Amino acid sequence: MSDQDTTPTPSPAPPIPTGTPPKVTNRGRAAGPADSANSETSDFPEYEYFVQPGPRGFPPLTEYLDILDVDMMKRRDESNKMDHHTMLYNSDYLIVRRGQEFQVNINFNRPYKPAEDKFALEFVIGSSPHFSKGTYIPVFPTKERQSSWEGRIINTFGNVVTMGITPAANCIVGKYHMYVGVVTPYGIRRTRRESSRDLYILFNPWVAEDAVFLGDESEREECVMTEMGIIYHGSYDDIAERDWNYGQFNFGILDACLYIMDRAEMPITNRGDPIKIVRVASAMLNSRDDDGGVLVGNWSGDYTYGVAPTSWTGSTDILLTYSSSKMPVCYAQCWVYAAVFNTFLRCLGIPSRVVTNYFSAHDNDGNLKTDIILDENGRIDRNRTRDSIWNYHCWNECYMSRPDLPAGFGGWQVVDATPQETSDGMYRCGPASVQAIKHGQICFPFDAAFVFAEINSDVVFYSRSKDGTMAPVKVNRTHVGRLILTKSPGNVTRRDITDQYKFSEGTTEERTVLEKAEEYGCKREKSSPPVADVDVVLPNLEIGVGTNFEMNIEFINNSDQQRTVDAYISGSVVYYTGVTGTEFLFLTPRVTIDPKANVRELVVVESKSYMKRLVEQANLHFIVTGKIRETGQIITAMKVVTLQNPKLIVRVSSGGKVNEEMIVSVEFTNPFSFSLEGVYIRMEGPGMMAPKSRYYSLITGGSSLTWTEYFTPERAGTSRVIATLDCPALRQVYGQASVTIKP
Amino acid sequence: MSDQDTTPTPSPAPPIPTGTPPKVTNRGRAAGPADSANSETSDFPEYEYFVQPGPRGFPPLTEYLDILDVDMMKRRDESNKMDHHTMLYNSDYLIVRRGQEFQVNINFNRPYKPAEDKFALEFVIGSSPHFSKGTYIPVFPTKERQSSWEGRIINTFGNVVTMGITPAANCIVGKYHMYVGVVTPYGIRRTRRESSRDLYILFNPWVAEDAVFLGDESEREECVMTEMGIIYHGSYDDIAERDWNYGQFNFGILDACLYIMDRAEMPITNRGDPIKIVRVASAMLNSRDDDGGVLVGNWSGDYTYGVAPTSWTGSTDILLTYSSSKMPVCYAQCWVYAAVFNTFLRCLGIPSRVVTNYFSAHDNDGNLKTDIILDENGRIDRNRTRDSIWNYHCWNECYMSRPDLPAGFGGWQVVDATPQETSDGMYRCGPASVQAIKHGQICFPFDAAFVFAEINSDVVFYSRSKDGTMAPVKVNRTHVGRLILTKSPGNVTRRDITDQYKFSEGTTEERTVLEKAEEYGCKREKSSPPVADVDVVLPNLEIGVGTNFEMNIEFINNSDQQRTVDAYISGSVVYYTGVTGTEFLFLTPRVTIDPKANVRELVVVESKSYMKRLVEQANLHFIVTGKIRETGQIITAMKVVTLQNPKLIVRVSSGGKVNEEMIVSVEFTNPFSFSLEGVYIRMEGPGMMAPKSRYYSLITGGSSLTWTEYFTPERAGTSRVIATLDCPALRQVYGQASVTIKP
Repeated sequence: MSDQDTTPTPSPAPPIPTGTPPKVTNRGRAAGPADSANSETSDFPEYEYFVQPGPRGFPPLTEYLDILDVDMMKRRDESNKMDHHTMLYNSDYLIVRRGQEFQVNINFNRPYKPAEDKFALEFVIGSSPHFSKGTYIPVFPTKERQSSWEGRIINTFGNVVTMGITPAANCIVGKYHMYVGVVTPYGIRRTRRESSRDLYILFNPWVAEDAVFLGDESEREECVMTEMGIIYHGSYDDIAERDWNYGQFNFGILDACLYIMDRAEMPITNRGDPIKIVRVASAMLNSRDDDGGVLVGNWSGDYTYGVAPTSWTGSTDILLTYSSSKMPVCYAQCWVYAAVFNTFLRCLGIPSRVVTNYFSAHDNDGNLKTDIILDENGRIDRNRTRDSIWNYHCWNECYMSRPDLPAGFGGWQVVDATPQETSDGMYRCGPASVQAIKHGQICFPFDAAFVFAEINSDVVFYSRSKDGTMAPVKVNRTHVGRLILTKSPGNVTRRDITDQYKFSEGTTEERTVLEKAEEYGCKREKSSPPVADVDVVLPNLEIGVGTNFEMNIEFINNSDQQRTVDAYISGSVVYYTGVTGTEFLFLTPRVTIDPKANVRELVVVESKSYMKRLVEQANLHFIVTGKIRETGQIITAMKVVTLQNPKLIVRVSSGGKVNEEMIVSVEFTNPFSFSLEGVYIRMEGPGMMAPKSRYYSLITGGSSLTWTEYFTPERAGTSRVIATLDCPALRQVYGQASVTIKP
Repeated sequence: MSDQDTTPTPSPAPPIPTGTPPKVTNRGRAAGPADSANSETSDFPEYEYFVQPGPRGFPPLTEYLDILDVDMMKRRDESNKMDHHTMLYNSDYLIVRRGQEFQVNINFNRPYKPAEDKFALEFVIGSSPHFSKGTYIPVFPTKERQSSWEGRIINTFGNVVTMGITPAANCIVGKYHMYVGVVTPYGIRRTRRESSRDLYILFNPWVAEDAVFLGDESEREECVMTEMGIIYHGSYDDIAERDWNYGQFNFGILDACLYIMDRAEMPITNRGDPIKIVRVASAMLNSRDDDGGVLVGNWSGDYTYGVAPTSWTGSTDILLTYSSSKMPVCYAQCWVYAAVFNTFLRCLGIPSRVVTNYFSAHDNDGNLKTDIILDENGRIDRNRTRDSIWNYHCWNECYMSRPDLPAGFGGWQVVDATPQETSDGMYRCGPASVQAIKHGQICFPFDAAFVFAEINSDVVFYSRSKDGTMAPVKVNRTHVGRLILTKSPGNVTRRDITDQYKFSEGTTEERTVLEKAEEYGCKREKSSPPVADVDVVLPNLEIGVGTNFEMNIEFINNSDQQRTVDAYISGSVVYYTGVTGTEFLFLTPRVTIDPKANVRELVVVESKSYMKRLVEQANLHFIVTGKIRETGQIITAMKVVTLQNPKLIVRVSSGGKVNEEMIVSVEFTNPFSFSLEGVYIRMEGPGMMAPKSRYYSLITGGSSLTWTEYFTPERAGTSRVIATLDCPALRQVYGQASVTIKP
């Protein structure tokens, strides 16, 4: 190496700055900023010249046609909102649906002359409107110059032109601004941006060209227009109902729904596609760590830092809190996720409903097996059994075409916002075609295999030997996905839609479907252990919470020899997720049954044994297992008993009329001998009363209370006032009253 | 309301604590903790009794067969690592592949008696091993008791038993622990946990039962066993090569790859499925905000807070930095993501290769259109054109069966870890079947439609009129996805694999595929604007960076009338992403061409005009557009010129032998008149030299340097030493030298 001055010499490298590196810019990566916030806007100039300025500056465009005023015709009783089924939205803006004409009036400074005047309505959305991206759409009154949106002059009267505009049936859904621009030879003069000319364009289930078109009027009425719903819960044997106010038309809800997409940084250009919107929302409705989602899940029973999931009466509070605080709302369980998702979907105009699946296999990762481990004596091994059958699980169905899939998979699609343990490490699910699930075509996106397993898993009982190996001793192929319910359109009864998801048990079609699913990687239990010749049956029970009760367990010997069963009878309190809390009862009777005979084993349960240990939603879970001495066979039976809670009594004054004050009262009596502490009562009624709540620090045993409120109904029709009572010792106490309001 | 003392009275609700709510526990939601960290372990007891303790405590299990020692036979030259193709891993542990037998020796305290002694090898992985989850696997030496793994006694010699174990071909991949347990009538006595009995089980492309089986030996050798690769870049007309040391066998890399899955909280039970592993990794290799991914993307040119993407020579530094700091590594661009992903895949035993697609349509969200907007005069409107054709883009292919899809879609799968603007708002892509992409079957997961658009988009030139409407004037259907390259197996030449992704242009098959893709929602430009009768052609150029050059632009008049073109000739510096930097040249000649004649327009480019403005990777982008006066037709031509950088000269001393010291020198001369500042030089060579770097604060114009290092090769064979030089003013200066090491 030479030693000249110019020879470069190495030196210690400068330290790389430590700490979190600064946010990297988009420079070099993309030509423009991402357009992913509907709340961001760009301003078009009032004067836009085509020509270079002359010696005396720009020509005065004011010589041409001038726009004095624009009327968006946005009152609830005007034809736009009536024709577009948007009259219920509590909003100051025009709200219309795509693929269908709406009207605006433009007042010029003189009569419009088609031969010489040239003007356009310009619709823009997002921060960087581009024609080729569908975020800038000029609409002309003449046929010659058309874009994907159609325009026509409906009427001229004096200086006023009535323009009809038909947005494309696949246009972006969200909040637009409308400019009116007059085109001159020198440039464009246009209206200044003013919020009165903002408008919302929604999905349109009423037009055949829209991807969310739904032909059935009664379903459309229910799944788009209805605010008050019923969500089914409880257990398969003992179905319970929960009223819910979706509140999709309440003030601020539509903006909150658009905010959810903004918060997800969903590109504006994707927001015309219902498939993409529901997929983003299914991820965004749940919040995990600090990802900014809407609802924090909590199944722990400790809700100190928020509202107990059982305490909510509707979605309004949740969505408005989220959009104003911009923080996740505490807390949710599955029906809260499904209910708020339903509000989101109906608010945007995507037909949707909440469905409940009884005995839902969870966290299953697409495997068709749920394992219950018994020891060599037939007793359940709780350490080795990872519960994953929920007593029930709620998800949503939304209605849309699926152009991304082969023909036949449009229609109802499952979406689910409840955070689950998915293979992707992502908390989202769907849209999965219900038709694809029913036919085992689970190779198609999104997450059809996961939903298929939720309704079709086998429950496999294993016997574990001392050296750690396990052998299947019983396979129950009918337990999971026993019943799928949703509310009937137009009334308050339940509708069994199990047959939309599954062919009947035992049919050829059912077997074919399961084989098809196995082709796509679903694993089933292949073994068929011999069926024991003794059955054990647990009775159906309706038990009020806090009462003592008896239970007759029946052992049926189907063989023609005597049988002796070493039985294990276990009673536990259980979460609706199927997760077991404390065991409060454990018996080990030996039962001897004569050939072809029955024996009943009486079990007495005292309220004091379970009351102190009750967890969420007051379920008791009884498992009977046992080993038949003569044959070594294992027998099993399971039953979830939902304890009946006391009720709230809701009374509404009679003779309701729009804009006339009414009275509602909520009554409650503590039926227990102990006091209830930290009690919240909430009530609300769509179109009548915003959510209200009251707090009682103490309700002593046996005491009663009455809460009276005044309210003024805003619109006519039949609706309901719903109320909940919730405290750590007693969850999900409900009451409701129907109200008919005359115009 | 009564006023008795017991009547509950409402009171203000207690405030909900503000601030971030505490992390919600899993209680009520799941019975056990999620098992999603391979690094977490659980300890089995040394003595596990089946019986209750008697009056004198537990019986002394020490009377039975005792285990003195276990030999995992894990030396590189022992049969396990040789047979399982894992001899190259620099690791102290046994590393084997699934679906194939390996051996261990167990030294008992006396000869093993099959008739009376009973023992098992117990393999465990994760923090809560369960038989039914495949995370606890007992393996017995006898045929009677078998689980999904097979065991047999290969040999007994004195007190030593040689056991053969064949893990299931679909077992979980990761780090296991092996216990040896002796089963007695009273309980199990087993070895204490000790890290020497840890072992890694990997994917096995050599056995037909494994989902990643690859039959071709030369491809297996390349795509699993080869550490040194070539990644193609540059431009379609001027392909450049980049050497890369994947380093999948280097010390610590396998643990780093497992850490990536742990960091993603990927459930252990999913880690036997290559589909799920590659999908998780495609998300996890990029870091967005604070999600803990491996690499931070940066295309901005400012790399103050990390290492310039062009400066890396291999994956080792990146993965070891990530696994030790547990922080994202700065910075990456597409080839860095693809290269590190390739290391991850090869390290776990999934066959993989890096491919390069020239003219890759990006951020396209599955639409088959890239729009370029011209004004009414035919000049490009840069404000309205959102560039989204990358000069090239790199992704990975990995080889596996696809049991989740219909037959025919196994084989090579596209995965891509470069963060893209996807509809999901998620930065992940694939696995997408190459066969499905080729046949337009883009309805199948994952992200096939997205990859299809990257190689099949149309480029549409629009002319924008003054009132904002646009009309297509030219559609180029062949520009995008022009060429797809990967390295040939076994040598250093390139292999054109375009035909694996696309049928030939103009064939019936090609048209059918595009129609099929349209059925699944891909949108194409339908219009076919008339082709102009004047062509414009830009020449191919090989230009050294910093030189002046001339360019002859040819205008060809195909008509039999005179044509006059008002042309716009624009030269810009451009990122490899296609994003345009500064325009350094702009000419507006009027060109008159006789009927059926050519005219050449000479353009002179001086180095001073572009040198100061050069951005990443030294590309110049020339666009010629224009309008034919006589017909109003628009003509266009584009060309990317990759400037040739100076080279590093790498020299290695001759006569290399394993474990004998050698010398390597890197020489560089600054060919410019200006100084280079802040210069890093890096070099490394697989099996010879770990990554090293040197920093020079200043290299004056015209000066030379030589960097000399000593190294000691660890293994025989042919390899390369590669070097890079990188500074803000000059990126991607490379050099390399081949080395043959004798044993």
